[in-house]
Amino acid sequence: MSIQLQIDATDGPARVGRLTLPHGVVETPVFMPVGTVASVKGVPQDVLEELGVQILLNNTYHLYLRPGVETIRRIGGLHRFMSWDRSILTDSGGFQVFSLNELRKVSEEGVTFRSHLDGSSHFFSPESAMAAQIGLGADIIMAFDECTEYPADRERARSSMEMTLRWAERSKKYFEQHKSEVPWADQTQSLFGIVQGGMDLKLRRESALRTVEIGFPGYAIGGLSVGEPRELTREIVESTLEHLPADKPRYLMGVGTPEEIAEYARMGVDMMDCVLPTRAARHGLLFTLKVKVYMKQTQYAQDEGPLDPQCGCRVCGRYSRAYLRHLYASNELLAQVLNTVHNVAYYLDTMRAVRHSIQLGERARFLSERCGPNP
Amino acid sequence: MSIQLQIDATDGPARVGRLTLPHGVVETPVFMPVGTVASVKGVPQDVLEELGVQILLNNTYHLYLRPGVETIRRIGGLHRFMSWDRSILTDSGGFQVFSLNELRKVSEEGVTFRSHLDGSSHFFSPESAMAAQIGLGADIIMAFDECTEYPADRERARSSMEMTLRWAERSKKYFEQHKSEVPWADQTQSLFGIVQGGMDLKLRRESALRTVEIGFPGYAIGGLSVGEPRELTREIVESTLEHLPADKPRYLMGVGTPEEIAEYARMGVDMMDCVLPTRAARHGLLFTLKVKVYMKQTQYAQDEGPLDPQCGCRVCGRYSRAYLRHLYASNELLAQVLNTVHNVAYYLDTMRAVRHSIQLGERARFLSERCGPNP
Repeated sequence: MSIQLQIDATDGPARVGRLTLPHGVVETPVFMPVGTVASVKGVPQDVLEELGVQILLNNTYHLYLRPGVETIRRIGGLHRFMSWDRSILTDSGGFQVFSLNELRKVSEEGVTFRSHLDGSSHFFSPESAMAAQIGLGADIIMAFDECTEYPADRERARSSMEMTLRWAERSKKYFEQHKSEVPWADQTQSLFGIVQGGMDLKLRRESALRTVEIGFPGYAIGGLSVGEPRELTREIVESTLEHLPADKPRYLMGVGTPEEIAEYARMGVDMMDCVLPTRAARHGLLFTLKVKVYMKQTQYAQDEGPLDPQCGCRVCGRYSRAYLRHLYASNELLAQVLNTVHNVAYYLDTMRAVRHSIQLGERARFLSERCGPNP
Repeated sequence: MSIQLQIDATDGPARVGRLTLPHGVVETPVFMPVGTVASVKGVPQDVLEELGVQILLNNTYHLYLRPGVETIRRIGGLHRFMSWDRSILTDSGGFQVFSLNELRKVSEEGVTFRSHLDGSSHFFSPESAMAAQIGLGADIIMAFDECTEYPADRERARSSMEMTLRWAERSKKYFEQHKSEVPWADQTQSLFGIVQGGMDLKLRRESALRTVEIGFPGYAIGGLSVGEPRELTREIVESTLEHLPADKPRYLMGVGTPEEIAEYARMGVDMMDCVLPTRAARHGLLFTLKVKVYMKQTQYAQDEGPLDPQCGCRVCGRYSRAYLRHLYASNELLAQVLNTVHNVAYYLDTMRAVRHSIQLGERARFLSERCGPNP
């Protein structure tokens, strides 16, 4: 078995589990930091390990363009290439093709797009996206989908969803024929299907049911966080989850704030990824338990306290806000490094707390009502 | 005593010693990485500790402009500000004022200059440079000097040297009156004098003798690496060292390549600093025992070997040249971080090897001649 989900505790729709993959066990619900080109920007791999990162996301589109799939495949796949022996998930490249390419041309066959690096022309089909992901060798790979733009009318959302379903079949077919070609051999990867359907609950339901019918070892909800209001995201996530099998991992792509990832986990999502913690860190926005800290604010220039007194990360344990603010104001490399370490720690701590609260579950609520601070 | 040099072994003019400072013992000869604005660009302090960095250099000019001396003084000085409890040396600001300011105005009183950040006007005198360095609170601080430009005729080099001597007296006088104001109290800092004199051996000799006459607990050789040929640098260092007292630390400012720092240490220099390892790292130039590795070269794109097979640093222990080349080619933050860690490790290893060879000294050469590989 190249993937196995064991559910250890549930609390309403939420669940805590262990997802066993070829490169280790992942505790779910899990947040996957984004390592676009096989690096979480500014953070060495040993620090990621120390933070407790169990699975990373890498972007197929970026790695396909540079250094190229063949370079990574020859070296033995992403794990060896980036010296990371824990789990990795790659996206299908679909989202980047749609978000970074205004000149893309979509047909039934696939998508023609131009490199954002040098303008060269490239083509992704379900088959070539699978070939790329097999060559990269992540533990979990994603079916090639069309991320429906927002807003889209019902007709457009339906036809896009239908194409994603046809592409899912082609992705699965190619994967089944070629899965033994993964560079690390003795086990195989796991291919997840992606639910689309725009912002239409009925289409989402249909997409979920028909994707499940095709049959994958895990399912993702794609096409969200594309500009729609957050309340709508929440509604679609909640209703889509109902149609996904409880014994398979459920992955919500590209979300969200710390509050949102906690909320989605409580709804029953098992896996999430987002560039927010790492990108915000580089722009001087730091998440803490009480407030968001914007490092550009001068109020921190004399602040000797730690960034987040309740955080146990190596940044909060060692440096003052005054120093971090100085590094940021001076545009120092170390600002981006330390800020990223903290934000990733904060996201992982958030998920630890969520897992803990799910494990405590109903019993804890009963006890806290009976034995709380005001008995 | 706020400074003490114990010489443990000598080999010709070279010596190995231990320099005891308020924030710890420094093994000499030592290379001091440059942490311009209280950060070695891209490297967290715990990694510097792990690399064995015992003393850092910070730049007074940069810190005076941002975040400002008062901010750092109020927090308790540089050690607390940057969370680094090992030793620190600050330069006087003189070199940056001369190298970064084309519009500076030098008078007997001091130097008027414009901030490279916002163009604002500032004034450094020996007294204000001392006040700034006392407020920053490094273990070792430097007299305010004029770095004579290259080339300079004899008349110009003499008058510049004479002013540096007068400034040295003023620096010492101010320091003696105010040294108790250091933010960390119970011990005091140590003020080093700086030998100038351009490229003239006689002036250098005179500058050394007269600086020693003023009397400092350590002496630096300044005004080199300003564009002169390396052979000339070497000649001036060698001849100046003869006129510096053997029982005081000797600091050669702003040099050099790994080969050069080893050579200067063999001449009897105890302390050196240089931006080369850190700056070169950010530009993809890596020092290894056999070759210089230019990361922009495509030959490394498929190279699975470590950067330097003979280096024990965490970068060489974990990552391949192919990965480091990919990070560099992708302009990833992590390239600058990892490259800097390696180059600093390489410089520190070079100094460790030099200390070891001095300790082995004549005896080792005798033994290796008698018992070498071809007996």
